Amino acid sequence: MTTRYKLTIEYFGAPFVGWQEQANGRGVQQVIAEAIHAFCGERVQVFGAGRTDAGVHATGQVAHVDIARDTDANTVREAVNHHLKPDPIAIMAAEDVSADFDARFSATKRHYLYRIINRRAPLTVERGRAWQVAVPLDATAMHDAAQVLVGRHDFTTFRAAQCQAASPVKTLDALDVARDGDLITIRARARSFLHNQIRSFAGTLKAVGEGRMTAQDVKDALEACDRALCGAVAPPDGLYLTRVDYKGPAGNDA
Amino acid sequence: MTTRYKLTIEYFGAPFVGWQEQANGRGVQQVIAEAIHAFCGERVQVFGAGRTDAGVHATGQVAHVDIARDTDANTVREAVNHHLKPDPIAIMAAEDVSADFDARFSATKRHYLYRIINRRAPLTVERGRAWQVAVPLDATAMHDAAQVLVGRHDFTTFRAAQCQAASPVKTLDALDVARDGDLITIRARARSFLHNQIRSFAGTLKAVGEGRMTAQDVKDALEACDRALCGAVAPPDGLYLTRVDYKGPAGNDA
Repeated sequence: MTTRYKLTIEYFGAPFVGWQEQANGRGVQQVIAEAIHAFCGERVQVFGAGRTDAGVHATGQVAHVDIARDTDANTVREAVNHHLKPDPIAIMAAEDVSADFDARFSATKRHYLYRIINRRAPLTVERGRAWQVAVPLDATAMHDAAQVLVGRHDFTTFRAAQCQAASPVKTLDALDVARDGDLITIRARARSFLHNQIRSFAGTLKAVGEGRMTAQDVKDALEACDRALCGAVAPPDGLYLTRVDYKGPAGNDA
Repeated sequence: MTTRYKLTIEYFGAPFVGWQEQANGRGVQQVIAEAIHAFCGERVQVFGAGRTDAGVHATGQVAHVDIARDTDANTVREAVNHHLKPDPIAIMAAEDVSADFDARFSATKRHYLYRIINRRAPLTVERGRAWQVAVPLDATAMHDAAQVLVGRHDFTTFRAAQCQAASPVKTLDALDVARDGDLITIRARARSFLHNQIRSFAGTLKAVGEGRMTAQDVKDALEACDRALCGAVAPPDGLYLTRVDYKGPAGNDA
């Protein structure tokens, strides 16, 4: 008998090739699996809600793992954190859940944050944690244009060539842009996203903020279903998976 | 003839031995001097308002330099930023000031921020940028105890052994502690500080937050003028020099 644990995970993405292991480097998933092995001697698979790309961060990634050792959620959290050192990955919470909880397939909502620091000077304290854009951006225009993208659409324009999703049709629940001093935040919420979708949104909205695209241009680009009409994909540094929602007792419906 | 420039500087302190050059590594001051040399071929001294320690950050350090080349403040800022790459140091603003402006001696107020992240899980995205404290801290008790320290006092208790200040008597204008979720901020303001003073405050206030010291204990420690009664000095990771104020046209009186 194994117990299934739901793990809420934070990581700084820069040192990793992404959530998934790749031939060219370590994935967050694998590093967590190794820490679990160091704790209990078991070779487990770590199933994540979001397969974040190389350099992308998380403050609220969720994964599930099955562990046979007779232990408890607090011990799992503390022991795995101990074995994760010195990698910048931390288990924020662990809870035991029923065997039908699936971090990926039970997820009802994924929340992402994209951070732009809009200033001329290069980043120092925030390096690797945001996208520095020197050209002044109009965040209000970006927010208005973003509303064109909300709803159920074929998002082919905003999808990476290597995207493996069965369909490019997704429902985007929210895409909000706000400014606080030099910081521009883009918050996206949907049941699921296509590969590179939010970084494609961020790149396109940056072009809007600069005045190089209008909301109508974004609408036209969306409707054309043509990847060539997407703005340059924004760098991974600014992207954070902040939260995953689930229905039922193991989830949160907020 | 030279022109004096006031530079407002941001840096991530981890890679440096502090503001000042040391036998064991590079100082921020020296790295900026080298960037200025690369720009204009002049060997200048960079005079800073705050001699931050190894690992301490700044978002609003101020320095002055004298440059002979016929140029302007915008060019200085852009060119020095270019030559500072890839070091995590950036000139946020440059302005030409009168020859009697002295970044250190004209300063009327220095503002520091100390960041504690109060949670069990190790830091990932915030690593090196805050002090992680696992024990739950009472920020209200910390703020109340901090008020004991405000005013004009002999701060010998909160002064590093190697402090070079002529007198341990200083006037602390404000020491405010506030909580926002996991983040506890300590904001300190004074004309000048002793070596390690704010990190000593942070360490002592952490002991208060844990319930190991009371406001009365802090008062007694202050009055004893005895370094041994100070809490453990907090790590540099959480400390930021955020702003320096000046009187007159080159300064800000806000």
